[in-house]
Amino acid sequence: MAKLLEKITPMDEDFGKWYTDIVKNAELIDYSGVRGCVFIRPYGCSIWENITLTLEKDFKRLGVENVLMPLLIPESLLEKEKNHVEGFAPEVAWVTVGGSEPLTERLCIRPTSEVLFCSHFSRIIQSWRDLPKIYNQWCSVVRWEKSSRPFLRSVEIHWQEGHTIHESPREAEEFTLKILNLYAVFFRDILCIPVILGKKTENEKFAGAEVTYTIECIMKDGKVLQSATSHYLGTNFARAFDIKFTNRKNETEPVYQTSWGLSTRVIAAFIMTHGDDCGLIVPPRIAPVQVIVIPISKGNIEITNVARKILLRLQEKFRVKIDESDQTPGWKFSQYEMKGVPIRLEIGPKDISNGTCVLSRRDTREKVRVEISKIENEIQNLLEKINENLYVSAKKRNKSKIFEALNKEDFYFLAQNKQGLIKTAWCGNSECEKIINEKTLLTSRCTPLEKEELLSACCPFCGCAAVENVFWGKAY
Amino acid sequence: MAKLLEKITPMDEDFGKWYTDIVKNAELIDYSGVRGCVFIRPYGCSIWENITLTLEKDFKRLGVENVLMPLLIPESLLEKEKNHVEGFAPEVAWVTVGGSEPLTERLCIRPTSEVLFCSHFSRIIQSWRDLPKIYNQWCSVVRWEKSSRPFLRSVEIHWQEGHTIHESPREAEEFTLKILNLYAVFFRDILCIPVILGKKTENEKFAGAEVTYTIECIMKDGKVLQSATSHYLGTNFARAFDIKFTNRKNETEPVYQTSWGLSTRVIAAFIMTHGDDCGLIVPPRIAPVQVIVIPISKGNIEITNVARKILLRLQEKFRVKIDESDQTPGWKFSQYEMKGVPIRLEIGPKDISNGTCVLSRRDTREKVRVEISKIENEIQNLLEKINENLYVSAKKRNKSKIFEALNKEDFYFLAQNKQGLIKTAWCGNSECEKIINEKTLLTSRCTPLEKEELLSACCPFCGCAAVENVFWGKAY
Repeated sequence: MAKLLEKITPMDEDFGKWYTDIVKNAELIDYSGVRGCVFIRPYGCSIWENITLTLEKDFKRLGVENVLMPLLIPESLLEKEKNHVEGFAPEVAWVTVGGSEPLTERLCIRPTSEVLFCSHFSRIIQSWRDLPKIYNQWCSVVRWEKSSRPFLRSVEIHWQEGHTIHESPREAEEFTLKILNLYAVFFRDILCIPVILGKKTENEKFAGAEVTYTIECIMKDGKVLQSATSHYLGTNFARAFDIKFTNRKNETEPVYQTSWGLSTRVIAAFIMTHGDDCGLIVPPRIAPVQVIVIPISKGNIEITNVARKILLRLQEKFRVKIDESDQTPGWKFSQYEMKGVPIRLEIGPKDISNGTCVLSRRDTREKVRVEISKIENEIQNLLEKINENLYVSAKKRNKSKIFEALNKEDFYFLAQNKQGLIKTAWCGNSECEKIINEKTLLTSRCTPLEKEELLSACCPFCGCAAVENVFWGKAY
Repeated sequence: MAKLLEKITPMDEDFGKWYTDIVKNAELIDYSGVRGCVFIRPYGCSIWENITLTLEKDFKRLGVENVLMPLLIPESLLEKEKNHVEGFAPEVAWVTVGGSEPLTERLCIRPTSEVLFCSHFSRIIQSWRDLPKIYNQWCSVVRWEKSSRPFLRSVEIHWQEGHTIHESPREAEEFTLKILNLYAVFFRDILCIPVILGKKTENEKFAGAEVTYTIECIMKDGKVLQSATSHYLGTNFARAFDIKFTNRKNETEPVYQTSWGLSTRVIAAFIMTHGDDCGLIVPPRIAPVQVIVIPISKGNIEITNVARKILLRLQEKFRVKIDESDQTPGWKFSQYEMKGVPIRLEIGPKDISNGTCVLSRRDTREKVRVEISKIENEIQNLLEKINENLYVSAKKRNKSKIFEALNKEDFYFLAQNKQGLIKTAWCGNSECEKIINEKTLLTSRCTPLEKEELLSACCPFCGCAAVENVFWGKAY
């Protein structure tokens, strides 16, 4: 047991090291020889698959259809939308040789696929009858990042990217918000993560978008993680790529477009929201193993048999495994704590005569002895309680990490002494934003989604009239 | 109707053109601006998803776990296994620039991932207790092919690649055959395609393998499609990558390895096995739409309502859609024939009073009037009949395309005058094989899996003693 635990750096000692220890020791990933690319191991892959399956169901309800776009983008295609290429060209990987011959035109590995979708849309859209198109793809993209941390920031990113086109700006904007809301519910109900919804500032929005909506999450260390985004693209791409349609009035007009994405970054989000010094805590609804059955049997075949029967019963309703290996119970306990399995089911000699077993929660470490005959209900209830507790605990912690500053002095004090989000009023000026960033290393995370009262009438930084409130934080 | 049909080149006129007309007109794909890469559209993507879901269930039963390996391979890693790099290096895409800087080492986009899996295995395997590892990934790979045809031969290929390691050669070889068998059953039961199972010759086997098993399918034009492969890799990679384990006798030894894959090529396989001059015929078990409901209503709301009620009932059990658009019935009929929907359900004025509707089979074009009250059973039976008929028809056609040649003259005559597989005895000599290939453009497809009697005592080509039978054919 000690052997396993000593591998994890305590959170308070070094949060970054704690994180990388966990992703490695819980067998989510293995480092590959390629900078910024990791092997996602079966346990990590299964978590991602559970996430994708859940989102797929939500997407289907909104009429989303999956497609598969090419991996490679010719340089000339990437260059068609001016803001987009400026945002992405500096960070892409270029293929310059195919087989043994140099290519006449460089191809980049997609950093995102707007231009590919646009090129397709421009060929298939004629009339308003062809709209909307509500497409999504699950794939990986490549961005040549300087630094890298598994799931958080990496050269290769596994994600989903949605791309839709509509006949009116209103329909497109509504769809952008529908997706934002879908993501928010997913974070709350499935990942048990409370979120801050908002709009990005001009500086921080997606290259080529009119508006970028974002989901921001506060991690245990007080740093902030941009965890999903939904963009209203207006007609920026449609004009660059000539995606026109004949509208209901028989006039030609460009389509109105959205794009939105969520990546394996959400794995980082729940690790840094729920994890502790014993390891991972996986939210029950995406846990590859919801219940681990551990017979404390020392070769007592009766105990093993009862444990196997429980396994068979539970398999009908839950994702469950048994560990009958010859490791010690202590080793097993810390192993599955490390992997964040929500419930451990122990069954020992005392239980056999009583018809009971012990359920141990990963989140609170509470143990309860229950009757085997009622085991399905007990586990169902416990999983729901764990789900709720994870969310409520995170929500409570978040509250203590959100601050308000009415003037410059308070802001700088908070920026230096507190980790979390600081809300202020501001003037909406990009230059003002850049100065704050240079002085504090904080960035604007978002302005609140709902219209709200200004914290102060003037921008605390430049003294100009304030136009909205904004959240500042140290971003991952 | 005529407008739609005239787009498809008849099969007998130009089979290749017929194929590309179909993949485009049935909306499986759209051509992208990138040579050898296509957009897989919702209808094509849905077929591929149904294929992956079916295979996933089969894989799970064999204990397969999914992982995600990096997209990029450093040149030095690719070079570790000599035969492997010789086979693949000439046909890979090289990334030489990341961001704006030239890379110190070139990276290729994976053409297949053996070396990545090996590099991971070498770090995680210590003892026989760690074995076997039975891994798979769903991803795309890139091979810089000169020519390209959607699903058949392309630069980007969507596929699954399985990689396993075992503690004994026997266990690994058995697993190679288990997968071959799994693929064969999948082709028969799900794609309705009869297959030829066999072993590749030395010339034709996978670069780095000891043995390559293959699934070969005869297309309607008599050409042969290698449709899935399963490789026994022995210890070739394990030695190159130093994947060693402590066996049960406490000795160190290299692991025994397999790899196996199946790609979107299987879509090409069923198109060219079942399709006809009216379009695609999609096997029922993977059809995105199994039943298309068409009310012949001309604004008759009663008919539309009955059709909608049928839709709701059928949705419980089948993948079903309704077409209420204002296109003519004729247009709709040819549209869903083009897309290969197995069953068309028509409901018109006459049916309303009788409580009936008409079911029309895509494969035989037979129509039958049935009672709406029994519709679920009728459709279930019909789908099963279509499945069986597709397989039986293909099997019968295959028989007429397999020939035997006992001497050189017969072989050359068949090679010139017949399209299909020609079986001969053979000396097993690679040089002899190369001469036949140069003379006839036929390649050896495989030697039969089961030991069988030699067709002639001597190799018909060189006169040396024959060692086995072999199938020759013109390959896609």
